[in-house]
Amino acid sequence: MTDPVLSHLLQHQADFVAHLGTFVAAPSVSTDPAYAEGMAQARRFLVARLNTLGFRDAREIAAGGHPAVTAHWHGAGPEAPTLLIYGHYDVQPPDPLDAWVTPPFTLSRRDGRLHARGVSDDKGPMLLAVETLGAFLAVEGRLPLNVTLLLEGEEECGSATLGAILAAHRDALRADAVLSADGARWRADLPTMTVATRGNTAMEISVRTASKDLHSGRYGGVARNATHELARLIATLHDADGCILVPGFADGALPPSAEDRAALATIPFDVPAHDAAIGARSGLTTAEFLERLWLRPTLDVNGLWGGYTGAGGKTVIPAEAHAKLSMRLVPGQDPARCVEAVSAHLRAACPPDVTLTIRATREGTRAYAVPPDHPLLLAAEAALEETTGRAPLRVRMGATLPLTDIVRGALGIDTVMFSFATADEDFHAPNENWRESAIGEGFAAWVALLRRCRDLERRDFAG
Amino acid sequence: MTDPVLSHLLQHQADFVAHLGTFVAAPSVSTDPAYAEGMAQARRFLVARLNTLGFRDAREIAAGGHPAVTAHWHGAGPEAPTLLIYGHYDVQPPDPLDAWVTPPFTLSRRDGRLHARGVSDDKGPMLLAVETLGAFLAVEGRLPLNVTLLLEGEEECGSATLGAILAAHRDALRADAVLSADGARWRADLPTMTVATRGNTAMEISVRTASKDLHSGRYGGVARNATHELARLIATLHDADGCILVPGFADGALPPSAEDRAALATIPFDVPAHDAAIGARSGLTTAEFLERLWLRPTLDVNGLWGGYTGAGGKTVIPAEAHAKLSMRLVPGQDPARCVEAVSAHLRAACPPDVTLTIRATREGTRAYAVPPDHPLLLAAEAALEETTGRAPLRVRMGATLPLTDIVRGALGIDTVMFSFATADEDFHAPNENWRESAIGEGFAAWVALLRRCRDLERRDFAG
Repeated sequence: MTDPVLSHLLQHQADFVAHLGTFVAAPSVSTDPAYAEGMAQARRFLVARLNTLGFRDAREIAAGGHPAVTAHWHGAGPEAPTLLIYGHYDVQPPDPLDAWVTPPFTLSRRDGRLHARGVSDDKGPMLLAVETLGAFLAVEGRLPLNVTLLLEGEEECGSATLGAILAAHRDALRADAVLSADGARWRADLPTMTVATRGNTAMEISVRTASKDLHSGRYGGVARNATHELARLIATLHDADGCILVPGFADGALPPSAEDRAALATIPFDVPAHDAAIGARSGLTTAEFLERLWLRPTLDVNGLWGGYTGAGGKTVIPAEAHAKLSMRLVPGQDPARCVEAVSAHLRAACPPDVTLTIRATREGTRAYAVPPDHPLLLAAEAALEETTGRAPLRVRMGATLPLTDIVRGALGIDTVMFSFATADEDFHAPNENWRESAIGEGFAAWVALLRRCRDLERRDFAG
Repeated sequence: MTDPVLSHLLQHQADFVAHLGTFVAAPSVSTDPAYAEGMAQARRFLVARLNTLGFRDAREIAAGGHPAVTAHWHGAGPEAPTLLIYGHYDVQPPDPLDAWVTPPFTLSRRDGRLHARGVSDDKGPMLLAVETLGAFLAVEGRLPLNVTLLLEGEEECGSATLGAILAAHRDALRADAVLSADGARWRADLPTMTVATRGNTAMEISVRTASKDLHSGRYGGVARNATHELARLIATLHDADGCILVPGFADGALPPSAEDRAALATIPFDVPAHDAAIGARSGLTTAEFLERLWLRPTLDVNGLWGGYTGAGGKTVIPAEAHAKLSMRLVPGQDPARCVEAVSAHLRAACPPDVTLTIRATREGTRAYAVPPDHPLLLAAEAALEETTGRAPLRVRMGATLPLTDIVRGALGIDTVMFSFATADEDFHAPNENWRESAIGEGFAAWVALLRRCRDLERRDFAG
């Protein structure tokens, strides 16, 4: 006998895809001011949809940055726990545009997947949560516990004002735990619960070697070249194996324990298949691979540019060159101290007659781990076992959910990730996509988890 | 008593500036196919102007690339020598556009200089030659010797088809020497003759580390980053002092002799003032500076790019990164062998699981030196001494005139540079400009030189 709320959702699956198509058509790129109208369009969609589904107070709240959308249903009474259900409506930039098979802001269906920027990160998974809540309200007239929705617009630029939003609306957003529709599941072939994330932070560097670009014949040999200086600085960051060479960067970082390493070795994972999927050859064992991905920090150049990059040639000595850098951090690393360590290293490596400018570009996020006995984690695991028939494996994630760090700081609560995106769906890259099968799986799991939440009490979350 | 031809030119100086304004308004960027109409516009201007001035056969000639414009006046008879007067109507790309004070393709006058892309390199200096020839025809009805004009359209992209044009029109272009309106004079404060140039060649490199850009959280630590690999490769090209570390690159290069060095030390040149003008601090002596600029080869990255370079951030691991490189070569270096040496060095430095693609992007040009007793060189020096009151100093040039190498190969003749551009006029950079004072100086010198050419005989050029 199928759950009536789940039946309702499955009967309306075509409507779900249509709503998702409207949602992804809003080009809500938060990092680029040129997309401000796309951001507003996405918010209007959410407010209208939430009001239609029965959340009568859906609205925008802001604290100086892109607004979040919030809505409440607190009809379960003051003794029932309150879940803060989280998602984000902003997306990564679509560049490089010419690498997309179909336009990034048009939902396209092929090979069992839906394609669009943001379809997997996080519009599809977030809409699963929204529509499941709406189905409970439609079929049963109520939710199994109190729910506050918080759908933010700055996840892709480091959740810069999320802390301020939580501080300004502390009472309205008070909750016992966060349930996040963001934070993609690791794999499609294995039920997993992601119980830890890496932190991150970012910076931008510029080098200047002259007051203007110079002719390579008239100055070649007697003027420094900014692109050479930038390349030399970047080359000092890692050794040939990719190990970070920045003094102080790993200060405080907890090294993987023997227990951590042993646990990694038990996880079924096909490194060569993963490598093949991205056209690379890492040559790592499973334990090495997962240790580097989950338990070690990284420092990556995300983009670099300088000089003439158009068609043909231009015999110029570039006077300036630039790079965007970001880091992934492990437990024990402080984001601000990591930026300072990289800055000090670069300043020490930069010749005195080259001008180096460094700019921290985002609020940092510390690494996070959910307490292993958290009641919402246990409920989510039980729901996944119920709907998949297999007990989920606890895994980590190399990516970052700034939310985890921010809500622990502002509201003192923990976050459980319950996403139905999968890590191979090319978010942050061209041709982002989302498995259509995730829709049915996600609906079943969300219904099962919310029903289990009826048995939770506020005191379960104490401490 | 002023020369009547010079009087004519000086009386019409305002017309000259107006014609130059029309000429620079044609955006004749040869390296970028998007500017094809600008190239055609510049050719139409030249053909029309030459016909107006009395060259009845002005026309375009081509050999698969951008056409050259040619015209003849051979009324001095078969015993008189023939000069091939050279200029180029193509210009460098105007990027970065936002660095221009006034629009690049609009002639603007300020601070005693005319500003526009190409005004100094080479439209202004070339128009001096064209208008001087026209003035001789207007005032005297003839030229002092036979003249063939060859105004090419591919100088800024390595004169790729100039050799083919010369081969296809060998009879029509046969001459005793080349007199080039291109090849800027070194300084405005000292009469100089440039008697040698460096060669050059160029290449483009691309590295690929994965089949697609990857999320820095989901792959950070287990996937190579193309921008790191590119930076590492570029950093292997030079030591910290800028010396080239590529094995075989300098094979065959003639090292500066003690005599060369002694000559350099006698040249009056203010290195700190030169450094200050470009916002740099080379810390070199005059002899070191000039040796590096004139007698040593260079290898410069002209542009590099990879990953996300837009506004804000994008936490991506770039799968590909690119760089444009060019070199300046000294006597004894073969351009093709230099490209091969850099390619072999990069291939050896590139890890096996990184794909490196190398593309030579232009025909190379060898370094050049005009024979010290060449009759046209001596005539040009005498003309400069006559018009400036000072014997010009023989100097070299760090830049390249592909023409020199190509005409020596195709026609077996030498080239004398007689330009009234000056090296500090920001050609190949934003805000290219040309001293207005060069107009009067140039007219006087061109008239004096052409009159002296009347005394030259064909046999002076033998051997």
